[in-house]
Amino acid sequence: MKATLAEAFNQTSYRLSGHTPRNLEVLKQALNQVDGERASDMYGKGEIIEDFQDKLADFLGKEAAVFFPSGTMAQQIALRIWADEKQVKRVAYHPLSHLEIHEEDGLKELHHLETILLADENRVIELEDVTGLDKEIACLLLELPQREIGGQLPSYETLEAISEYCRKQGIRLHLDGARLLEILPYYRKSAAEIGALFDSVYISMYKGLGGVAGAILAGEASFTEKSKVWKRRHGGDLISLYPYILSADYYFEKHKDKMDQYYQDAVQLAEQFNRCPYISTVPEIPVSNMFHVYLAKGKEAAESLLASIYEEGGIGLTSYVKEKNEQACYFEVSIGEGYHSIPKPEIKKTFELLGKKISDQEENEYCG
Amino acid sequence: MKATLAEAFNQTSYRLSGHTPRNLEVLKQALNQVDGERASDMYGKGEIIEDFQDKLADFLGKEAAVFFPSGTMAQQIALRIWADEKQVKRVAYHPLSHLEIHEEDGLKELHHLETILLADENRVIELEDVTGLDKEIACLLLELPQREIGGQLPSYETLEAISEYCRKQGIRLHLDGARLLEILPYYRKSAAEIGALFDSVYISMYKGLGGVAGAILAGEASFTEKSKVWKRRHGGDLISLYPYILSADYYFEKHKDKMDQYYQDAVQLAEQFNRCPYISTVPEIPVSNMFHVYLAKGKEAAESLLASIYEEGGIGLTSYVKEKNEQACYFEVSIGEGYHSIPKPEIKKTFELLGKKISDQEENEYCG
Repeated sequence: MKATLAEAFNQTSYRLSGHTPRNLEVLKQALNQVDGERASDMYGKGEIIEDFQDKLADFLGKEAAVFFPSGTMAQQIALRIWADEKQVKRVAYHPLSHLEIHEEDGLKELHHLETILLADENRVIELEDVTGLDKEIACLLLELPQREIGGQLPSYETLEAISEYCRKQGIRLHLDGARLLEILPYYRKSAAEIGALFDSVYISMYKGLGGVAGAILAGEASFTEKSKVWKRRHGGDLISLYPYILSADYYFEKHKDKMDQYYQDAVQLAEQFNRCPYISTVPEIPVSNMFHVYLAKGKEAAESLLASIYEEGGIGLTSYVKEKNEQACYFEVSIGEGYHSIPKPEIKKTFELLGKKISDQEENEYCG
Repeated sequence: MKATLAEAFNQTSYRLSGHTPRNLEVLKQALNQVDGERASDMYGKGEIIEDFQDKLADFLGKEAAVFFPSGTMAQQIALRIWADEKQVKRVAYHPLSHLEIHEEDGLKELHHLETILLADENRVIELEDVTGLDKEIACLLLELPQREIGGQLPSYETLEAISEYCRKQGIRLHLDGARLLEILPYYRKSAAEIGALFDSVYISMYKGLGGVAGAILAGEASFTEKSKVWKRRHGGDLISLYPYILSADYYFEKHKDKMDQYYQDAVQLAEQFNRCPYISTVPEIPVSNMFHVYLAKGKEAAESLLASIYEEGGIGLTSYVKEKNEQACYFEVSIGEGYHSIPKPEIKKTFELLGKKISDQEENEYCG
């Protein structure tokens, strides 16, 4: 019986995306050097949590920061605070925002906020989407990069213009910066410079950064203090968050200065994909460490093609593909430490196999 | 300058309550033997989380169980599910329930449930409180033991009668069993036998059990499946919960069979406290591993008294006292592994000091 794509992927020696595999070693390594005598944080208090929050507040150029178990919790709370402040229970974001498609409608079910979806499933939010709003909103959420469309970004000038417009209109601007560090090389800005355009900023501690879980929400102290009350209401004010905080700190230090390399790797790798027939990337030229790879094939054909490549080569390109339509499917690539551990000849071999097998499947075209 | 109570407590070599100190060693020890190659749980899926959930479901005699980051999250969700089921947005619990006093009104602010407070601040809920309800409720929450009044319990017959009444009336019965294992020796029942009286059961993985954080919510699969949706909405469906799950499992195995010893220790220790003048315990005879110690002293006098005992003896009785009124204050004792590590002569010495110093402060009475 032929292996499924996920099974074949699990047998590969190398992975295109991510850092090391998500196994228990990730936590164990982060804890190796810590002093067992150090006291746990206790319900949001204590050196471990307060020091890390202060450090990330500085990094993001904000007055204060709060560590949350998840971005889902942090972002709903940010939007709720801004909605309460303005007494307008309406916010706006992209149709493929994490809040819209991955959170079981928590924002609506728990916070009863109405949402306006800006732009569409193929592009990012532009200034005109915001100036064209015909209803009052309390807050606009921008996700940078827009993950579900391959990590696309607006121009920096657009960001500045949206920020200025929102301030004039009394609209709070929230940054879904789950992958904020990953876009700094493209914009050539610091996290604090981008953060200055926003009233509140969320970053994930595990996506590009590689921690175990957790998130940071930053803003003025009057905002973060309110967020702590909501964190308790959500059940996120755990007696001990240190397993996530210590690993967040460890991998933040380990990976934060490597984002430029990941970005350059992504640009170079997308170019290789784009040289293959029936394959294109979105964006064509990445603007962060990530992009989506589109195959002009049906889902089953694509899965079978990829599985056979994994069996002959040693690199897992993806564990899944998502159907776009009957003639196209795609997967995400997100560069981290893992890519660097792959010997260059292995990469070459995989792209040769990819070209050859697509050609075999279709019309004897070749890429490599 | 004299040390504050908390400062004096921090200098003590032994602590009356709890297991080992809440430091990073608690997690490190739990991880020592785990295989770093084991895969993380992923958003509620995977062997680590599923196996532990199955084990705790069996232990609690329920069809299914879900691991939550916190009891705050788990219990709000349980009540919400029962309220939605019956389309009655009203539940009942004790006035000193965790939900009423420690959760910033999350149940009301996030779930918009109305609450009816049963019994009063000096006693547990009895059958008559439930049969006397004059409004319809979807769910009754019983906290066993009732922590904020020293861990008191209703009789087992009362529990059975309340359970039977609720079933007949179509009222769901939820167990706040944060400290469920701690009451099994008194009732001489298994967790499953007590669980059978309830529609849904929550237990804490860190209170008496000594894990890092986390909670289990158990019930029928139709209930737990709904709870997973709400867990995601709350932001509790983390990519990785394994730091809490592995430590919960480790300390569950380490402490679950010691509850009878902790209970007997508590009974014996309360007796010693009750022999001291100006001191009494609630309950007078503990029914679990915990009780409250009341001092017939003002808060400042009590703090000064205790601090001076810590400085001469080596045992920290408590890091804080709470004011009951101008002439009385109290603190909680909760027996775990820590108590066993205290040499008996040290305990004798501390009670001698306690008796002597109370007498010095007042009327030359003596306990010991």
